Amino acid sequence: MNDEHHKSLASTFTDSFPLPADTEPHLRAALDRVLNNPGSLVRPQIVAKMFAGYGLPAAHATELGFALEYFHTASLLFDDLPCMDDALHRRGAPCIHAEFGEAEAILAALALVNRAYGLTWKCVFGCGRGREMRALEYIERYLGVGGLLNGQSMDINYGSLHAANSPRTDHTVTESIAMGKTVSLIRLTLVLPGILGGASPAELQLLDRVAICWGLTYQIVDDLKDILQSPEESGKTVSRDISMGRPNIALAIGVTGAVHRLQRLIRMGDRMLDRLVVLRPGVAFLQELRVQLDAEAAEIIDNACESFAPASLQGAA
Amino acid sequence: MNDEHHKSLASTFTDSFPLPADTEPHLRAALDRVLNNPGSLVRPQIVAKMFAGYGLPAAHATELGFALEYFHTASLLFDDLPCMDDALHRRGAPCIHAEFGEAEAILAALALVNRAYGLTWKCVFGCGRGREMRALEYIERYLGVGGLLNGQSMDINYGSLHAANSPRTDHTVTESIAMGKTVSLIRLTLVLPGILGGASPAELQLLDRVAICWGLTYQIVDDLKDILQSPEESGKTVSRDISMGRPNIALAIGVTGAVHRLQRLIRMGDRMLDRLVVLRPGVAFLQELRVQLDAEAAEIIDNACESFAPASLQGAA
Repeated sequence: MNDEHHKSLASTFTDSFPLPADTEPHLRAALDRVLNNPGSLVRPQIVAKMFAGYGLPAAHATELGFALEYFHTASLLFDDLPCMDDALHRRGAPCIHAEFGEAEAILAALALVNRAYGLTWKCVFGCGRGREMRALEYIERYLGVGGLLNGQSMDINYGSLHAANSPRTDHTVTESIAMGKTVSLIRLTLVLPGILGGASPAELQLLDRVAICWGLTYQIVDDLKDILQSPEESGKTVSRDISMGRPNIALAIGVTGAVHRLQRLIRMGDRMLDRLVVLRPGVAFLQELRVQLDAEAAEIIDNACESFAPASLQGAA
Repeated sequence: MNDEHHKSLASTFTDSFPLPADTEPHLRAALDRVLNNPGSLVRPQIVAKMFAGYGLPAAHATELGFALEYFHTASLLFDDLPCMDDALHRRGAPCIHAEFGEAEAILAALALVNRAYGLTWKCVFGCGRGREMRALEYIERYLGVGGLLNGQSMDINYGSLHAANSPRTDHTVTESIAMGKTVSLIRLTLVLPGILGGASPAELQLLDRVAICWGLTYQIVDDLKDILQSPEESGKTVSRDISMGRPNIALAIGVTGAVHRLQRLIRMGDRMLDRLVVLRPGVAFLQELRVQLDAEAAEIIDNACESFAPASLQGAA
């Protein structure tokens, strides 16, 4: 994505949430900061292309894309709170609670959530009653106790889960957490346009599996970054996983094991994606996206090789 | 309401939020406690009668009634957090954050919010495209920065608002906070069934004004309780408004002034209600509800008279 394109998306990120004139000044200040400091905005871009691939209206793609971006941003505001990850920096700036107080961070996050549901409704309406109901149930499931919130609760209770499932020798616990925390929003980004666009059950299953492979891949890259990068490189508080006793696959099975798992997931995702594109050539853009994901994974694998440098890992990379 | 009726509603309060089998145990425990300790459940009862008055299906009334109850319960979980009201007791039991930790209280509240949006769209669907869109926009507005969240932000920032608007000699600041915090959910309870049932603009305006009068009445009664009642009587932490510097109309304009304002709002609400029932006889049940509200107001007025006993107030009561 070039700078001009990101600038235009960033402006939609701000404009999709107009604040009423009588918004309380502290809440307005917190929301202004959030809305003027977006992340990579990768979700609206993917949703736009998915909607095009399924012949759905571009206006609805903008609504869903930014709704998902607001849900994601709200989840970061909650995750960063002192009672959760207790982070201080995010997106290269102080966390909202660090600058505006915890109460205002919670209210700003709830405002984003409320706006996100509002945009979701607008997007889903008009796709036909059956698809609308399936889409809304899918959203409720993966944002709620069946997805994001369950993953976050497993995350903060990892200490006691871990005690019940020790020793830390496999990837099942960290991956079941990532299935809730990370995969849920990727599922909504990839599968929901398929549901709204009337994808076949076979397509929906492939979309779902690509979402799982990519979500777990992303989480491993993030876990490795937490261990290997400096705060300057990542733009947020790092090494939280060690200091907070939080789940991190590289801590659970070692850096080498995590890199191998990462490479395996990328290969599995590739196979699913190849089969999907045969069924629905309109989503072939996902193969370019996969190249970007691979480049980021390759960078962190290089980083792992430099830092840890076992001969077997360098061969694998 | 008799015990049997409350028992049946309490069971629907639990059953309307089925938890998936793999719900993380700490989150499940917190949600079980919330779902098994409902409040008065007055919202589902009013919504059921409003839906009947507008000829709308009873199943949809249950969805909206419990959705509003979950939104309300979630707002209490957030309000009670240490960074907001820092309360310890609610509904005759320890607050969720006091028993399960702040993080779990936040996740449980978000789960209630997510389930509430899910129930809301089930309820709203099928009322015709125009009414659906109006209803969903109304919900977004009054739950969000245009209502509940704005009121809560004004509430927690009352100290600085007050400094900018001193001296505390009128009811405008406390009432603008109550318009956000308290009136918003009453608006959704009374006006939303009207929107879904195709009420005329005149009816919707009267419903809106009744909601305002009742919401402000309820807030004054609550403010007076905070000052006059013991924790045993109210079932929650009391005298928070004085100790936390929070808005309370009786602290702003005195107990006598608050009682006079309360009586004035009840009379205004009565006038609106009489006009509404002429237009829509199906909502005449609201007049019985108003008698209950009046009984609670009378009790707190008696309490105020006993505690403060100025001759002028006894005459007014």
